Amino acid sequence: MPLSCKIHAARDLRFEQQADAELGPHQVEVQLGAAGICGSDLHYYFHGRAGAFQIREPLTPGHEASGAVLRTGSAVKGLSPGTKVAINPSQACGSCGYCRKGRENLCTQMRFLGSASIFPHVQGMFRDRFVVNERQLTAVGTDITFGELAFAEPLAVALHSVNRCGPLLGKTVLVTGAGTIGCLIVMAARVAGAARIIACDVAEHPLQAASASGADMLVRSDASGNPGLSDSADICLEAAGNVKALAACIDACRRGGRIVQVGTLPADGVHFPANAVMARELEYVGAFRFGIEFDWAVDYLVSRRIDARPLLTAQLPLKDAAAAFDLAADKSRSTKVQLVGEAAMA
Amino acid sequence: MPLSCKIHAARDLRFEQQADAELGPHQVEVQLGAAGICGSDLHYYFHGRAGAFQIREPLTPGHEASGAVLRTGSAVKGLSPGTKVAINPSQACGSCGYCRKGRENLCTQMRFLGSASIFPHVQGMFRDRFVVNERQLTAVGTDITFGELAFAEPLAVALHSVNRCGPLLGKTVLVTGAGTIGCLIVMAARVAGAARIIACDVAEHPLQAASASGADMLVRSDASGNPGLSDSADICLEAAGNVKALAACIDACRRGGRIVQVGTLPADGVHFPANAVMARELEYVGAFRFGIEFDWAVDYLVSRRIDARPLLTAQLPLKDAAAAFDLAADKSRSTKVQLVGEAAMA
Amino acid sequence: MPLSCKIHAARDLRFEQQADAELGPHQVEVQLGAAGICGSDLHYYFHGRAGAFQIREPLTPGHEASGAVLRTGSAVKGLSPGTKVAINPSQACGSCGYCRKGRENLCTQMRFLGSASIFPHVQGMFRDRFVVNERQLTAVGTDITFGELAFAEPLAVALHSVNRCGPLLGKTVLVTGAGTIGCLIVMAARVAGAARIIACDVAEHPLQAASASGADMLVRSDASGNPGLSDSADICLEAAGNVKALAACIDACRRGGRIVQVGTLPADGVHFPANAVMARELEYVGAFRFGIEFDWAVDYLVSRRIDARPLLTAQLPLKDAAAAFDLAADKSRSTKVQLVGEAAMA
Amino acid sequence: MPLSCKIHAARDLRFEQQADAELGPHQVEVQLGAAGICGSDLHYYFHGRAGAFQIREPLTPGHEASGAVLRTGSAVKGLSPGTKVAINPSQACGSCGYCRKGRENLCTQMRFLGSASIFPHVQGMFRDRFVVNERQLTAVGTDITFGELAFAEPLAVALHSVNRCGPLLGKTVLVTGAGTIGCLIVMAARVAGAARIIACDVAEHPLQAASASGADMLVRSDASGNPGLSDSADICLEAAGNVKALAACIDACRRGGRIVQVGTLPADGVHFPANAVMARELEYVGAFRFGIEFDWAVDYLVSRRIDARPLLTAQLPLKDAAAAFDLAADKSRSTKVQLVGEAAMA
Repeated sequence: MPLSCKIHAARDLRFEQQADAELGPHQVEVQLGAAGICGSDLHYYFHGRAGAFQIREPLTPGHEASGAVLRTGSAVKGLSPGTKVAINPSQACGSCGYCRKGRENLCTQMRFLGSASIFPHVQGMFRDRFVVNERQLTAVGTDITFGELAFAEPLAVALHSVNRCGPLLGKTVLVTGAGTIGCLIVMAARVAGAARIIACDVAEHPLQAASASGADMLVRSDASGNPGLSDSADICLEAAGNVKALAACIDACRRGGRIVQVGTLPADGVHFPANAVMARELEYVGAFRFGIEFDWAVDYLVSRRIDARPLLTAQLPLKDAAAAFDLAADKSRSTKVQLVGEAAMA
Repeated sequence: MPLSCKIHAARDLRFEQQADAELGPHQVEVQLGAAGICGSDLHYYFHGRAGAFQIREPLTPGHEASGAVLRTGSAVKGLSPGTKVAINPSQACGSCGYCRKGRENLCTQMRFLGSASIFPHVQGMFRDRFVVNERQLTAVGTDITFGELAFAEPLAVALHSVNRCGPLLGKTVLVTGAGTIGCLIVMAARVAGAARIIACDVAEHPLQAASASGADMLVRSDASGNPGLSDSADICLEAAGNVKALAACIDACRRGGRIVQVGTLPADGVHFPANAVMARELEYVGAFRFGIEFDWAVDYLVSRRIDARPLLTAQLPLKDAAAAFDLAADKSRSTKVQLVGEAAMA
Repeated sequence: MPLSCKIHAARDLRFEQQADAELGPHQVEVQLGAAGICGSDLHYYFHGRAGAFQIREPLTPGHEASGAVLRTGSAVKGLSPGTKVAINPSQACGSCGYCRKGRENLCTQMRFLGSASIFPHVQGMFRDRFVVNERQLTAVGTDITFGELAFAEPLAVALHSVNRCGPLLGKTVLVTGAGTIGCLIVMAARVAGAARIIACDVAEHPLQAASASGADMLVRSDASGNPGLSDSADICLEAAGNVKALAACIDACRRGGRIVQVGTLPADGVHFPANAVMARELEYVGAFRFGIEFDWAVDYLVSRRIDARPLLTAQLPLKDAAAAFDLAADKSRSTKVQLVGEAAMA
Repeated sequence: MPLSCKIHAARDLRFEQQADAELGPHQVEVQLGAAGICGSDLHYYFHGRAGAFQIREPLTPGHEASGAVLRTGSAVKGLSPGTKVAINPSQACGSCGYCRKGRENLCTQMRFLGSASIFPHVQGMFRDRFVVNERQLTAVGTDITFGELAFAEPLAVALHSVNRCGPLLGKTVLVTGAGTIGCLIVMAARVAGAARIIACDVAEHPLQAASASGADMLVRSDASGNPGLSDSADICLEAAGNVKALAACIDACRRGGRIVQVGTLPADGVHFPANAVMARELEYVGAFRFGIEFDWAVDYLVSRRIDARPLLTAQLPLKDAAAAFDLAADKSRSTKVQLVGEAAMA
């Protein structure tokens, strides 16, 4: 009997049996391959909330998954049972002002799998089976594993962050925070032509991951959080979600440079050297989720121009989700931890 | 005997007699027409420092001036005595990395008239006569007054701020702070095609100036500093140099929008909702001085497509500089106060 | 009995009685206010084709119209009978790759009213009544006339052309071809901050219209087509659809400048100094229809920041369409000619 | 006795003995390492002109060279005899309007080594020794060979072409013409993140070079010049300088895409489907020489992130220049041919 993992409140994770789903004409039922555990999933599990999004009803998290087609709706073409698929958790409306401007990630009617951002929540993919719209699926060949393919979503985030940087050719890039997103940003910045990439973190395990991801220089912040990188980078990507890391980025960024905020910061604000933004004409810009970059991510993973495998620490069965969350939360031991379904284990 | 106004320390302003200057082949001696008092001049006079720039030797302030040619160096062509000129206080090196990128305002070798940013300080234009390089001068006709022409520098700042906004066609723009720069930004944003301009200030006199400058909507902030403008603007220009005004801009700015910091904020940082920058994918960027926009400013003033005259509160003789500083500091009564030389009074 | 104007072949224009239409839940029946005759309408009428689009079944042309709501579908909210409306003839799909990039004007599934670009053709608005989707309508107040409001579509084209120019602040702009689109481009370029606008045409009537539209300088090309404007413009907009005008633009455009092609050129190619594009690093780019600029156009017309009235040469009743086409084709006498329905004449 | 190679007229190449040069304080005398023969050098040698530039006095060609420092002027710091250097042939003025905009390659006062673009001509580097300004030199280590280092200039051209493309991440790129520049563009586009690169040429040898450069797909044009690539590329770079190749690019380019003209086309114009530029909203833009990309090129070559070695067909001594020109002109056998001095042969 297929199971669904649901968070009812902080550290209250339960499994439910899934009923059979009815399929609309353009819907597809997918069997879970692998699903990565992301920082927001950890926040839901450990704190019952992620940033401004509070769990108000039981939520199945999970928005970075791969799988195999089980059944297809009557109007679905080109997808047969067993096909390996990447799953885009993002569903923009296509008609609001932001969608019309080509910024679907800012869609006011966004439905994003596994998120408590709207109510009723949009249920996610930490379950054996789930139903999505055919437009969310990209069929791939069999050479790529479910585990690699489940990196498509975080890689899309990284590619979108890099897109927010402007051109990187010839540039020196600083990435603060060398978790999964930070490391994928290192890979994406390399692919996008950065001349030199500096990775910075407070711990050793993430820095080793950044090195495996292609960073040219590793910097470990001391307790003060100041890595001593003044005026060393043209572009900074803040992927730690940490105010000291942000301060390090502002300090490191050359006149006229850009700092892209990728990580989540405290919702009630931080202390920020805004005058430096004016006097050095910096650009501090946000990167939120992704748009078309999901398709690119699948492409780069399938061609292995970007190889995410060094970032996969462990895969655990769906039923061991609690243990997986604990491992994923321990940054001294893990980069990416994934839950896997029966399809992947077959 | 020509006089020079010098600030020796906070509220210590003295006049000195000027010796005759020798001219290099490409130099020009100019007689003061009019010179506007800017916020940084006020900071030098009242506090002995402007932001990070501390007075370390007597400084003649003044960087927004017009005048008439007195004498020209041996190699100067096309400028005869009596010619009315706009004076660009900015002298970039033309060869550093920032100049080569087309960002001369960020030049590492910048010499900016009337500024304590480097030592020895670069002396400014609050004096009867001064020597500049011919490249700093733009000759104009006689239809424009010295008073209007002295707006070229602050208008260049405003035009540069607007350039930092990206395209304004069809956009709703919020300007916080309706002093001289804020009002010139309103005018520049109008010229640049903004569909709707909202001006916001804490006081009545500046709001009336903004209205005279063409703002479509005036908003007076209450004591809390929150003007209640959530999600109302595509682009915000923060020209108040005030943390509450900045918060109002972040609150007002729509997803994917841009906030341009023009005003000077406390050098030691401010409380800032950086997570909103990420989650709404905002762009918080600085605008610092100007480049080619100085030439544009002269052009728009001469053609009166931008008419700065409503912003000129008063003109006082150079010798009354102390009284002029006091008036300029009183925002309930004044927008722009200028010092004028004999040329302008003739 | 409501009539519909149909072109069956070159110079074969017939009127048909319109049957009652059934309304879908989100549809609206509109009574014609005014509808401008555009160059492509003239091509359909005089030649049976417009560029690459051949009439393959009887076509009601007309894509620049205003009107009044007659009836609304069951799900339509906020539109009551009698409401004056602008009508956007453009219907993009919202989901193809171009729509997702924010370029709905390039939509591969575009349905554009009054165009033979797809088959069956999408019927246009040269008729007493027509049914559109509620999303195509923008309600306006009563201060603006039907005639002005029918300029929304060509003004959207002009605004889109100007958007394709990049920033115009401080720039000198050349517009070749001073028909309706050329004149609206002059107006739009002015609103967008152009410092100086040169209009060029081969005939006197259009140049006078350009002057009324705000051009700073008028240039009449001689028979050779060379207006002698070498190196005089930063940005050129070619709105004549003429190879000599294009050559004049390339000649006039300064190094690094941009030429925007707005007018339709011969489908089989033209002689073009492509090497100058390389050696002077020019940018020759197309502008095709419009996207969000339609909404802006309505806004600028309603506020009269752009006043199109000087461009309206004549309004004729729908039944006199043939005479109206003849007048519209005579550029020595007319700029914009409109067909009007009973609503406008009431 | 050091020799200089001079072209007096078409196919009239002579050697002259070089007199001792006097050095200004900021000048450096360099001994030739290697100097690549470029298409414009071939045009000077075989036709006495390159595009619009006619030889009007004996010209030493050569603008892509590396060397070793021989002597330094009195004010030169940080360069000692024997230091291996890359030599930037481009000398912009730093103060004209184009330089101020950050577009030094368009400088109106440009002095470019080995070019007949101005008179007296600026003599180039096909000689044993030459004097340049210290700012033109970049010192490098000994790991890189003179031959590789002499690719800095053509690689700068390629990187500049790629910069003119806009972002390449996720894009499919077509490169027409697989000579040295085309192949370096393939390498540069790969580094800049292109998802897929198609190379197209009429001959087999260049296509093999493109393959060695990393192209994903090779297309050989048939006699008609039409490679059948309609709607297959987001970005095209035309490096063949051929009108059929240009037509293929326009045909291949998707709506809204960009075609960058790198190769030289006939000065008197070509037949061009300009209407497609309008109707598909294409962007046809030029790429001319380079700016800051020279520094990047040295960096990418030294780090071997770009490895130009597969493109070096042969090196011949300076005295065999005529034979080297013949070999360089035979595209069925050669990609890049270089002349080498004694320093490189030591």
